[in-house]
Amino acid sequence: MKNSKTLSESKHDSYRIAVIGATGYGGLQTIKLLKDHPNFFITYLGGNNTSGKKWNKLNPFLELRDDPIIQKPNIDSIADSSDFAILSLPNGIASRIVPGLLKKGVRILDLSADYRYRSLDLWKQIYFNENKQVERQDYDLCNEAIYGLSEWYKEKIAKASLVACPGCFPTSTLLGLLPFLSQGLVETVGIIVDAKTGTSGGGRSPKENLLLSEASESISPYGVIGHRHTSEMEQEAKHFSGKEIELQFTPHLVPMVRGLLTTVYARLRDPGLTAEDCQTVLDTIYRDNDFIKVLPVGIYPKTKWSRQTNKVFISVQVDKRNGQLVIMTCIDNLMKGQAGQAIQNLNIMTSNSDAKGLPISSFYP
Amino acid sequence: MKNSKTLSESKHDSYRIAVIGATGYGGLQTIKLLKDHPNFFITYLGGNNTSGKKWNKLNPFLELRDDPIIQKPNIDSIADSSDFAILSLPNGIASRIVPGLLKKGVRILDLSADYRYRSLDLWKQIYFNENKQVERQDYDLCNEAIYGLSEWYKEKIAKASLVACPGCFPTSTLLGLLPFLSQGLVETVGIIVDAKTGTSGGGRSPKENLLLSEASESISPYGVIGHRHTSEMEQEAKHFSGKEIELQFTPHLVPMVRGLLTTVYARLRDPGLTAEDCQTVLDTIYRDNDFIKVLPVGIYPKTKWSRQTNKVFISVQVDKRNGQLVIMTCIDNLMKGQAGQAIQNLNIMTSNSDAKGLPISSFYP
Amino acid sequence: MKNSKTLSESKHDSYRIAVIGATGYGGLQTIKLLKDHPNFFITYLGGNNTSGKKWNKLNPFLELRDDPIIQKPNIDSIADSSDFAILSLPNGIASRIVPGLLKKGVRILDLSADYRYRSLDLWKQIYFNENKQVERQDYDLCNEAIYGLSEWYKEKIAKASLVACPGCFPTSTLLGLLPFLSQGLVETVGIIVDAKTGTSGGGRSPKENLLLSEASESISPYGVIGHRHTSEMEQEAKHFSGKEIELQFTPHLVPMVRGLLTTVYARLRDPGLTAEDCQTVLDTIYRDNDFIKVLPVGIYPKTKWSRQTNKVFISVQVDKRNGQLVIMTCIDNLMKGQAGQAIQNLNIMTSNSDAKGLPISSFYP
Amino acid sequence: MKNSKTLSESKHDSYRIAVIGATGYGGLQTIKLLKDHPNFFITYLGGNNTSGKKWNKLNPFLELRDDPIIQKPNIDSIADSSDFAILSLPNGIASRIVPGLLKKGVRILDLSADYRYRSLDLWKQIYFNENKQVERQDYDLCNEAIYGLSEWYKEKIAKASLVACPGCFPTSTLLGLLPFLSQGLVETVGIIVDAKTGTSGGGRSPKENLLLSEASESISPYGVIGHRHTSEMEQEAKHFSGKEIELQFTPHLVPMVRGLLTTVYARLRDPGLTAEDCQTVLDTIYRDNDFIKVLPVGIYPKTKWSRQTNKVFISVQVDKRNGQLVIMTCIDNLMKGQAGQAIQNLNIMTSNSDAKGLPISSFYP
Repeated sequence: MKNSKTLSESKHDSYRIAVIGATGYGGLQTIKLLKDHPNFFITYLGGNNTSGKKWNKLNPFLELRDDPIIQKPNIDSIADSSDFAILSLPNGIASRIVPGLLKKGVRILDLSADYRYRSLDLWKQIYFNENKQVERQDYDLCNEAIYGLSEWYKEKIAKASLVACPGCFPTSTLLGLLPFLSQGLVETVGIIVDAKTGTSGGGRSPKENLLLSEASESISPYGVIGHRHTSEMEQEAKHFSGKEIELQFTPHLVPMVRGLLTTVYARLRDPGLTAEDCQTVLDTIYRDNDFIKVLPVGIYPKTKWSRQTNKVFISVQVDKRNGQLVIMTCIDNLMKGQAGQAIQNLNIMTSNSDAKGLPISSFYP
Repeated sequence: MKNSKTLSESKHDSYRIAVIGATGYGGLQTIKLLKDHPNFFITYLGGNNTSGKKWNKLNPFLELRDDPIIQKPNIDSIADSSDFAILSLPNGIASRIVPGLLKKGVRILDLSADYRYRSLDLWKQIYFNENKQVERQDYDLCNEAIYGLSEWYKEKIAKASLVACPGCFPTSTLLGLLPFLSQGLVETVGIIVDAKTGTSGGGRSPKENLLLSEASESISPYGVIGHRHTSEMEQEAKHFSGKEIELQFTPHLVPMVRGLLTTVYARLRDPGLTAEDCQTVLDTIYRDNDFIKVLPVGIYPKTKWSRQTNKVFISVQVDKRNGQLVIMTCIDNLMKGQAGQAIQNLNIMTSNSDAKGLPISSFYP
Repeated sequence: MKNSKTLSESKHDSYRIAVIGATGYGGLQTIKLLKDHPNFFITYLGGNNTSGKKWNKLNPFLELRDDPIIQKPNIDSIADSSDFAILSLPNGIASRIVPGLLKKGVRILDLSADYRYRSLDLWKQIYFNENKQVERQDYDLCNEAIYGLSEWYKEKIAKASLVACPGCFPTSTLLGLLPFLSQGLVETVGIIVDAKTGTSGGGRSPKENLLLSEASESISPYGVIGHRHTSEMEQEAKHFSGKEIELQFTPHLVPMVRGLLTTVYARLRDPGLTAEDCQTVLDTIYRDNDFIKVLPVGIYPKTKWSRQTNKVFISVQVDKRNGQLVIMTCIDNLMKGQAGQAIQNLNIMTSNSDAKGLPISSFYP
Repeated sequence: MKNSKTLSESKHDSYRIAVIGATGYGGLQTIKLLKDHPNFFITYLGGNNTSGKKWNKLNPFLELRDDPIIQKPNIDSIADSSDFAILSLPNGIASRIVPGLLKKGVRILDLSADYRYRSLDLWKQIYFNENKQVERQDYDLCNEAIYGLSEWYKEKIAKASLVACPGCFPTSTLLGLLPFLSQGLVETVGIIVDAKTGTSGGGRSPKENLLLSEASESISPYGVIGHRHTSEMEQEAKHFSGKEIELQFTPHLVPMVRGLLTTVYARLRDPGLTAEDCQTVLDTIYRDNDFIKVLPVGIYPKTKWSRQTNKVFISVQVDKRNGQLVIMTCIDNLMKGQAGQAIQNLNIMTSNSDAKGLPISSFYP
């Protein structure tokens, strides 16, 4: 562990970070990224099931300096020890501690869906089971929270106290689709989002359908029509296009651990546009971007290229016969789709460059 | 090998079958299925790379009675020994021996694309590289050949001399889509086919992108706009709908050996139809069918369910907001998508029931 | 479902079979094999968690004629309906119903460990947690039960009322090792059994370590020194060698669903024996065997070859420098390692040939 | 690419590195690690099949600043541009350029087997096919080369001009076994090495047995008795024990990309030693080590823990009945087993700490 940094050695631009919900996959990624980051220091580890235990014995593959003990989350202790809190909790649970933390001046990155909707009423409709247990009333916070899609909300994220990090499917879908929607280049009806994800998106709690015996050597759609991420994507699609949009979203479970690919189909309003024209649209928008790689026409994204990085690969293709556009985007669902984007946002909130301390090229294969 | 049947023991309804192209994945499946079938007997094994070798040493996992020697394919020998020939050869190659075999009275099931198009000119356009080497002129045979989509061409297959077995993607796509297209229930513009296949569809010849190191833990689109199977699907979609149809077809390579899933998006002409109504459409058409299982609304196909069987699972869902229909279909790409459908057709050609000798339920998991 | 047989159509040599514990992996395999067998008819389906439910909706991939309802297991009902019962229950639970069933004349194949030990006291020592809940006293039944390693106990199985089917690791290990031990060809000290198994051996109940996210892209030993199957193997090794034997057994979890490989290391007593000599030893013992394929020297077993079959592949190699023998054996852990061997034993108990109705060659790949 | 370092910005302790054989898996890892290292700069990329091509188009997942062109390897150009050369070439080929490079003062890390043997005659015997093409005579260089097992040859590596990086199997095996051999704690006869590796160990050139369709869902031994790495391990086992040692080595191909596990069986000379005693032996030897994690007794290594890191996990267990020792060690075969160890050695050769710039904790899962 000799190569680890210490907080005392750190420069004046160092920040103290609490991670709440440390042993799920989102928490593990967050901790790995924080450990490797020169400016961020883990000062609090919170977890319910594992509270009271030492970290290193539970996680020999990710040892931390000083082997911290996992705490039962407590607002005062978090506020005393930390400048920022990254919450990796089940939906509904974050809303119980966010108001308290904000009052004490802790800035928050929430990985759950609790503050992704500007309308709490919409959240209650979509996450009605979760709401039964928490009966939320924090309408104002929902309104103040910033949707943490880094490339599209960067300025607001920089000043935000509460950042609601997007879901994995919305991140991949919107990064490919918003350039065309925001410029009015595609029809807003009939947009199809066919998505494919690895099993880690289903979390670490054991479920039969996520067993290797069940999920390997198989692919299957799930949550067809009505997956919760649909409304989240539609909110942002409307926000940037100015129009009501209904998306056809179908996720599929793919026999791999990490990786998420979205294949989006939309109709060009000007059917004379070529694939190269559409590539130029993307190039222009994402020109000075650390993480988004627009691929040349004819090269298609492989999720393996983005694995364990915060990178996004986008490729476009057009059917010349009819102006149908295909936008293919891949990310690592636990990185740009979750913890990586949170750290990118943390970089933005602390005036670091987006990519500081984040992995950008993959170990292949 | 005591449990193997012998030709001499067989009943009068037994048939002698030649398999040409025996050691690729299509050939292996064909041989496995024939070995287990009570009416069909392998009387000729043809292969180029392995000719002269004994079968059992090469394939200890699929031993054949009497351990036949693989032959360099020869029309006279095939015709002398066999009533039927199943050709599992690279595209273009089948057309070199099909005319000769037909003249000698051998009935043929071709697994390649050579006779899938009614128009040889279209074949030449799509398979131009292959045509350079063979310079085909057999326009009449293309016209006479029957497209071997068993459920939709059954009567013609029964009497055919030359059956062109469909590609794996067209089989899955068309089985789900044709019920709606043929009855005019969906718009013929804007149909999207998003397909996912295992690596065995890429064959047994070593290629870098099919290595486990490359293909596992990754998903990627390929052949976007312009995959050869597009035109094959469009030919049949037009045939059954009576209209020109342009399909948006995107195949994806999935990290699994077998299995093929198509997620088809189309717009209902009557947006008042429910998912249950659409299920009824399928139920009605496929009612007395051995292999097609229409799933209840809300249950979605898993490719693992059809693995190593000739079974097809279809499920439909409708977005009530806008009448968008999603048709999800899965098959085993080497079975119903290739060799299994060939044997189903052979059953039809010999007046057996479709399912005779074919696996119908999977070993799960 | 038209191709299914019916009990009434069956010949006089048909048998009625109860399957208890129907929805675990052992149960599913058993039902699949029984469904395809010409002489055996499922007349009772017992299960606890799923009792009261219809079979086909739960298992669309394995539909049964007449769609039976799963029953809460009841001795009288089982005895009324069935000649044989195949028990696929957690360890300890079988012993609660076996005595009752035997009294009513039902012959039993038990897939658990309950009757694998001749000494109940040894069982209590190894399965002490299970014994706490059942406090067994059926010493006599342990003594009467026949260890169901088909190839080595065939005559006793034929007449048995209670067959204790072996564990997956003992089956593979013993089939390779017993020919050498029983003939005194290897030293009885220093025998190493290094075993590798797929995840389905861990069952269908969700556990974190069996998730695809955890188990894929990884291999790991577990249960090192002291795995329960060690004592089972040692019992049989002693039985056939006449000597006390201590085995060094290390199982490893491999990222695949099915398949089990044992690599056994032993020292030849006559170091002049060659690999070919050792192959001859195996050939001689397993000469007239349906399922055991002894491979030529230099060809090594692949678990894929035995997948979804009851086949066993064995290969031997010798280090000429020192007479060290390596015995490599592979099986499908759910077939020859579990349900397949049970049906093989059922064939033996009903005077059928061993292989009747059992899959013998694999669908490759 | 903004976060990349530039050579001109670098401090005085920066080094110019040539990578020869850049697009195989060894080369890719090397480049990824060099790109992320603060002191090393890639100044030359050599490759045969891809020479003349720009790097970034071929490898969009691993873009390099300034997008270098891959060169046809040339000794003068390498020497002009680089202080060190890392050779990732097929066996036999490195020996053609090593003498020339050394003469020009380039220090070399060779990933092939060419200089792993102190005796060139032994190399010729083991790699006889490769020698046919090169007819080597560089006996002196074989004698001067240092075997690059970092933890055991550190002082010699620091001063070496030519470091022969060990094979993947020897690295894992020796790290676990040498502590016991070097201290005379285990018998030197009867040592068994049962090894398991992912497919990336077989390289990137397409081969049928490495296809996903073939290698997935299967495990198989290969190269049983006589695998080339046996002699390499025996050389080092003899070196550190002072005795001739014959190892029984059996590698197995596991369906995963990366990861290598060795399960080593040896007999303790003092059968009274416990597993905890043996753990203490390892702890003592590897106390101040950056990469080797000795696990507590009862915790076993998972290759996933070391994936894409240079970390080594070792665990020991003892059968109290007979003093049999089991040593379980895992590494990433492309990292500590290949390129990672090379960079560790490069750190040592440049007076950096072993772990500088190297990944030490994994992205899990």
